[in-house]
Amino acid sequence: MNYSIIIYIVGMILNLEAVLMVLPGVTAIIYGEKAGFAFLITIAICLAIGIPVSVKISRKQVFYAREGFVAVALSWITLSIIGAVPFVLTGSIPNPIDALFETVSGFTTTGASILTDVEVLPHSVLIWRSFTHWIGGMGVLVFVLAILPLTGGYHMALMKAESPGPSVSRMLPTVQSTAKVLYAIYIGLTVTQILLMLITGMPLFDALCISFGTAGTGGFGVLNASCGSYTTIQQIIITVFMILFGINFNVYFLALMKQFGQAVRVEELRYYLGIIGAAILAITINTVHLFSNVGEAIQQVSFQVGSIITTTGYSTTDFDQWPVFSKTILVMLMFIGACAGSTGGGIKVSRIMILIKSVGKEMMLFLHPNAIKKIKIDQKPVAHEVVRSTNIFIIVYVVIFAFSTLIISIDNFSFTTNFTAVAATLNNIGPGLEMVGPTGNYSLFSGFSKLILTFDMLAGRLEIFPLMMLFYYKTWTKV
Amino acid sequence: MNYSIIIYIVGMILNLEAVLMVLPGVTAIIYGEKAGFAFLITIAICLAIGIPVSVKISRKQVFYAREGFVAVALSWITLSIIGAVPFVLTGSIPNPIDALFETVSGFTTTGASILTDVEVLPHSVLIWRSFTHWIGGMGVLVFVLAILPLTGGYHMALMKAESPGPSVSRMLPTVQSTAKVLYAIYIGLTVTQILLMLITGMPLFDALCISFGTAGTGGFGVLNASCGSYTTIQQIIITVFMILFGINFNVYFLALMKQFGQAVRVEELRYYLGIIGAAILAITINTVHLFSNVGEAIQQVSFQVGSIITTTGYSTTDFDQWPVFSKTILVMLMFIGACAGSTGGGIKVSRIMILIKSVGKEMMLFLHPNAIKKIKIDQKPVAHEVVRSTNIFIIVYVVIFAFSTLIISIDNFSFTTNFTAVAATLNNIGPGLEMVGPTGNYSLFSGFSKLILTFDMLAGRLEIFPLMMLFYYKTWTKV
Repeated sequence: MNYSIIIYIVGMILNLEAVLMVLPGVTAIIYGEKAGFAFLITIAICLAIGIPVSVKISRKQVFYAREGFVAVALSWITLSIIGAVPFVLTGSIPNPIDALFETVSGFTTTGASILTDVEVLPHSVLIWRSFTHWIGGMGVLVFVLAILPLTGGYHMALMKAESPGPSVSRMLPTVQSTAKVLYAIYIGLTVTQILLMLITGMPLFDALCISFGTAGTGGFGVLNASCGSYTTIQQIIITVFMILFGINFNVYFLALMKQFGQAVRVEELRYYLGIIGAAILAITINTVHLFSNVGEAIQQVSFQVGSIITTTGYSTTDFDQWPVFSKTILVMLMFIGACAGSTGGGIKVSRIMILIKSVGKEMMLFLHPNAIKKIKIDQKPVAHEVVRSTNIFIIVYVVIFAFSTLIISIDNFSFTTNFTAVAATLNNIGPGLEMVGPTGNYSLFSGFSKLILTFDMLAGRLEIFPLMMLFYYKTWTKV
Repeated sequence: MNYSIIIYIVGMILNLEAVLMVLPGVTAIIYGEKAGFAFLITIAICLAIGIPVSVKISRKQVFYAREGFVAVALSWITLSIIGAVPFVLTGSIPNPIDALFETVSGFTTTGASILTDVEVLPHSVLIWRSFTHWIGGMGVLVFVLAILPLTGGYHMALMKAESPGPSVSRMLPTVQSTAKVLYAIYIGLTVTQILLMLITGMPLFDALCISFGTAGTGGFGVLNASCGSYTTIQQIIITVFMILFGINFNVYFLALMKQFGQAVRVEELRYYLGIIGAAILAITINTVHLFSNVGEAIQQVSFQVGSIITTTGYSTTDFDQWPVFSKTILVMLMFIGACAGSTGGGIKVSRIMILIKSVGKEMMLFLHPNAIKKIKIDQKPVAHEVVRSTNIFIIVYVVIFAFSTLIISIDNFSFTTNFTAVAATLNNIGPGLEMVGPTGNYSLFSGFSKLILTFDMLAGRLEIFPLMMLFYYKTWTKV
């Protein structure tokens, strides 16, 4: 294990966090909030640890997958612990476990909250809370890669460990340039949304926070009604952008390269939009009687469907009151999640595609045991390792799911509450059903259960393996 | 597709069913019940169809996996449809869909019932209901194999398609002799249980029905309180036998061969008993305050744990009233299920073992991408195909699970009811939680939902693929 390079990377992350906290700091100054001091203190802590350890890069360039996994896991844990400090210092969330839960929920773009009333919080705290979504959406290490002139062979290992989805396709020859393109697309889309929200008359503060939450597919709102009190046109814009941020960024890259034909033929995109369309249709038919007209039904259902499948978690209506059939569809969407290579969570559409195609292959093999059949996506064969890894992912996913549900059941809330709480955190969505539904929150869970759910959020965002590797004894033994 | 051999096999199954219906027929005569005529009519139907089509065996011996799958699926469907006739004719269950549900529940050893009061049924109907468990437990085609002097290469394909678990290990050189040993063990254990029940003072009728249900890991009782009104000693005997019938029959075979050392070293056995022990411990701690003393708690918890993990489904207490933690453990046990090569259902302990070991292998491969590592069970490497097939099994399992839960949610019962109803049918257990809990039943579901759950029971018993192959277009196309 190359400890020096890991310490260096974690140090860089702390420096970066200090820079990022300037935004809430400036907000505090604008609104004249005392909370600004909390951010100032936290910035000082970040730099006091970060600068000494990152002042010079290690000469030991050995960097394999194990270093990649550990660096990713430790970076995210450090980021979250330090990110929670302002919540505690400002007294917004005095309990450290609660503050950690809320911060991890932010960075992992979950949006599950332990707060019962967000409208009493200072503006600086609210914007930090939403900004963590935006930071976590694209990933912090990708950012480090994009701005630092690092050399050595570990870029791909880092990017693989942090990126959502079964496989990372390098758009450009170097990882740095790929990362830069990704961030350019991310920033471009976010700025577009902010501008559109401003045009519809939303105040700048709300426009920033809501756009950060949409871009990162997070879901923290600044009002207690989530997005329920925004105008219909604002809700529609948010719906569209939620769905846009759930698309594989490769599609945008292809579009930027003017390869529109190839962009619209991306198989994952068509599956993703197909699932969204089918879900909207089915739920609208099932719930149309709850709305004043069909148009309103479609608009409201589209918002909820877009919010859940992209794992954002905003809400405009209490879908916990919908018929069980519609709720079951929403729970299924929670598991499917967005596209790989987007900011969304969940199992990912491309994994679902690989799984469905493996089943087809298996059935074919029953009939023709000696046939050679390769699973293909976008007309290209999928590597055997990716298929195997996808299968294993599902298994670990199910195991973590089952044990989390078991452990938090000690609190004796209902089975549906526990099941959907785990579904909503492991898939980085936010709201579940019953106690953790759109009008509820996670505050009543015990501290221990909150830690389990915090683990689930991190496991979901980092796609399980980096976090698992941290607890795997062989990671720490000599090669 | 070799249709003639499939028709021949289905015909043999019908003849066999006619023979098996002699038991309820005789019961009707003993108790002087008019229901006897219903069985007589059904026997006549069986023979009228069965004898003509099975009078001479097809000369076309082509028999591959596709014929095996189709033969198994069609045999079970035919068996169930004809098996339901007496329920309708006697008026015990007038609705044909309900009767089919109950019969499939019997043959698949599920034990889920749509009846609200079983004590009003004629004895002949009750014993048929319990006898279906015993017939379905070991499988009907295995029986056909054991008594018929068939030649050709299709024995293994049939046995593979009908046997529970990821792989069938042939104990003896020929499939016939293996099947005979399996049935001998099955009959031996069943007779032992019947004798023990008689010794404790249980009436012969109850002893037969309860033992049939235990042996097949079914769960239909003859009293409305399931096993709640039997004495403690009777409940303990049932507990022990439920757990015994959940053990891989290979273990008994090894013991019969006097290879005791090898028998106790079977890895699946140790996992199975370990899981049972851990579950009993955890639930006892969680529920001890509900019982009058620790001894009673252990006895009651052991019964419920044994009943659920072996997928039997008898109950002595309403575990739906237990704390959520205990209920969550029971739900987890529903999924784990019994050992492969037993009469129990569920995912099977050996599949869980393969899955856990694949995860370990994957994590190792992250660190050493070029390492060669084989998954081993009982010190023997598991074939690559078995691992892949196990992974695919889990995926199809999850997909069927999700869609079944979705479809039956149209009835608008609670999420927990729907989730555990599918869990209890797909894993062939019987009772779930809430509406389908130990004191409830499946009668309130719509006819359509009952058909979905019927499909799930068959899919669970036949381990999904035979039934899936029936709906796979390539099964029916030319090779």
